[in-house]
Amino acid sequence: MKDHGIQTGLDEISSGFPLGACSLPRSRYDHILLGHGSGGRLTAELIGRIFVPGFGGEVLGALEDAATLRLDAGNGVRGPRLAFTTDSFVVRPLFFPGGDIGSLAVHGTVNDLAVSGAVPLFLSAAFILEEGLPLDDLRRIVASMRAACGLAGVTLVTGDTKVVDRGKGDGVFITTSGVGLMPEGRSLSIHAARPGDCILLSGTLGDHGIAIMSLREDLEFETVLESDTAPLNGLTRAILEACPGTRCMRDPTRGGLAGALNEMAEASGVGVKLDEAAIPLRREVKGACEMLGLDPVYVANEGKLVAVVPPESADLALEVMRAHPLGRDASLIGRVVLEHPGMVILHSRVGGERVVTLLSGEQLPRIC
Amino acid sequence: MKDHGIQTGLDEISSGFPLGACSLPRSRYDHILLGHGSGGRLTAELIGRIFVPGFGGEVLGALEDAATLRLDAGNGVRGPRLAFTTDSFVVRPLFFPGGDIGSLAVHGTVNDLAVSGAVPLFLSAAFILEEGLPLDDLRRIVASMRAACGLAGVTLVTGDTKVVDRGKGDGVFITTSGVGLMPEGRSLSIHAARPGDCILLSGTLGDHGIAIMSLREDLEFETVLESDTAPLNGLTRAILEACPGTRCMRDPTRGGLAGALNEMAEASGVGVKLDEAAIPLRREVKGACEMLGLDPVYVANEGKLVAVVPPESADLALEVMRAHPLGRDASLIGRVVLEHPGMVILHSRVGGERVVTLLSGEQLPRIC
Repeated sequence: MKDHGIQTGLDEISSGFPLGACSLPRSRYDHILLGHGSGGRLTAELIGRIFVPGFGGEVLGALEDAATLRLDAGNGVRGPRLAFTTDSFVVRPLFFPGGDIGSLAVHGTVNDLAVSGAVPLFLSAAFILEEGLPLDDLRRIVASMRAACGLAGVTLVTGDTKVVDRGKGDGVFITTSGVGLMPEGRSLSIHAARPGDCILLSGTLGDHGIAIMSLREDLEFETVLESDTAPLNGLTRAILEACPGTRCMRDPTRGGLAGALNEMAEASGVGVKLDEAAIPLRREVKGACEMLGLDPVYVANEGKLVAVVPPESADLALEVMRAHPLGRDASLIGRVVLEHPGMVILHSRVGGERVVTLLSGEQLPRIC
Repeated sequence: MKDHGIQTGLDEISSGFPLGACSLPRSRYDHILLGHGSGGRLTAELIGRIFVPGFGGEVLGALEDAATLRLDAGNGVRGPRLAFTTDSFVVRPLFFPGGDIGSLAVHGTVNDLAVSGAVPLFLSAAFILEEGLPLDDLRRIVASMRAACGLAGVTLVTGDTKVVDRGKGDGVFITTSGVGLMPEGRSLSIHAARPGDCILLSGTLGDHGIAIMSLREDLEFETVLESDTAPLNGLTRAILEACPGTRCMRDPTRGGLAGALNEMAEASGVGVKLDEAAIPLRREVKGACEMLGLDPVYVANEGKLVAVVPPESADLALEVMRAHPLGRDASLIGRVVLEHPGMVILHSRVGGERVVTLLSGEQLPRIC
């Protein structure tokens, strides 16, 4: 593109769509279902059937976690690479143990930039408020966002506020967008996994989803189970400094670990073998999942990452992760394999094997 | 800020808040009202009382139309200047003569970048869908966004989709964010108006607001009144190439011309004199405003801009605007004056004068 003497261009747009979605049978539904927001198969179907064809092949990367762009000022010097991402937050309830919609909205966008390999710098925040929202709730949310920005080292630089009539919203929805700097030469991609690579998880699985769910279902634990919502940019920086050959990282939010690994397996044309016994789980999460009939590999996390690293880097990466407060419980949970490409197979504690697919419906609506 | 060997910093954050809002009496309300989304006095109050103190002085510019940021890659070469902006769209109905929520969401963000002086390049789009939304509606909206991006010469590079349960949303809300390049040396600011400057309006006032309102109120005209929704980046480029000394530009959306000029008068510490007879109005808009008791200076526009230029540039700027399809009806509508700083005074057709303040409540809810 050339405009006004300024040269710009798409340097790289990652296009890690679960393209298998495109081969699904013709949509059985002609209306939006809650499951379209699940981060599972219905979400993939919506992307594959409406957004990708609608926005066209040239923006196949649209609706991926973060886009990487080259920004040249046209003075003959190559400009910096930019990472750009956006996420809406509609979590219910607005306040929960360990966080609220405000901190979640900051962390979510910071983390999308961080796991793409970028250094998060600037955020925008757009609020859709429902008529009748107590101003004190909004104050708490804004204070929480400010604290979260401070902790993550990012600056909120622009925003917007809209109000919808009572009954046409739900308290507050927040959309954050983020701009970060992608260091030269860095290129993480869910297309980059190779057989033999190690799959590392930074900590316990399912804390966010179960914290929200137990609040909704009024479950009680001996201790309060808190959401793991946290900014991952410190942890990703440590990993990438120690292991610049890291293939890719993802934060397993909606759709959980299963969603993140299925997308990677599909994109890279590889298989994934997981060891259930190696996946760290809090006792409360394990118990709640058993009680509610949920599988922790599908439950959302908001302060965890999966890193895929070459085998020779795995020990160092684990050491670096465990030295960071957000990676204390980091574990090697599986391997990338040549067999069963596009599939994730879990070796269970009791010795069996099962295929972990994308979630087909909605497990926990409005978890983020 | 210094992080990971990369230097970045806020080059300039415009902080054009209507700071007069801070001297308002203590808020009479403790809940969100529809008027908080009006773009008028209540919106200013929300910004002044909650967002500015909440996010802190260092981000006083937050919630302004667009932030300007310097992005250095740390290689000793000064990086490009970036413009970054965000807007949520909650317009009702979703489809209206001349456009829909999709094209509006693209134009709105393109225009915020354009009037700040930047070259719009990349957009993100985050969708909040209500359970039950017909997929065909979503398809139409996506097609309309794609066409609008093509026309404006911007690329949609990333996005997100969330679904909320029936009755907790309203079909679809869209939040677009935009990144643009701010050419070196360019500095438009609502703080920059000087007595003697000329105020130019690019065309007829109120078309968008009245098109939406007449649809809601089932008003009939001889011809269909269409929204003026359009991308202004071609027009702003023409103006800035011809008149690089332009002080500032605004697109008078929510809050209308009155909102845009009051904010500028306040920020620059100047007065504004408007000539009502010089403001171009379509016959249908004039008639509908009389019938509905609306004042066109408060009605939203989505394809118009106000430019403040030094007196010696006014003729050239008008000529350039009139040569552009979106500026055919451009007019000199008023002057910046030394008298009555912070106030906008309208000289009416019949010879009287009246003060045009910020709208205190909500005139047309959910107009964008």
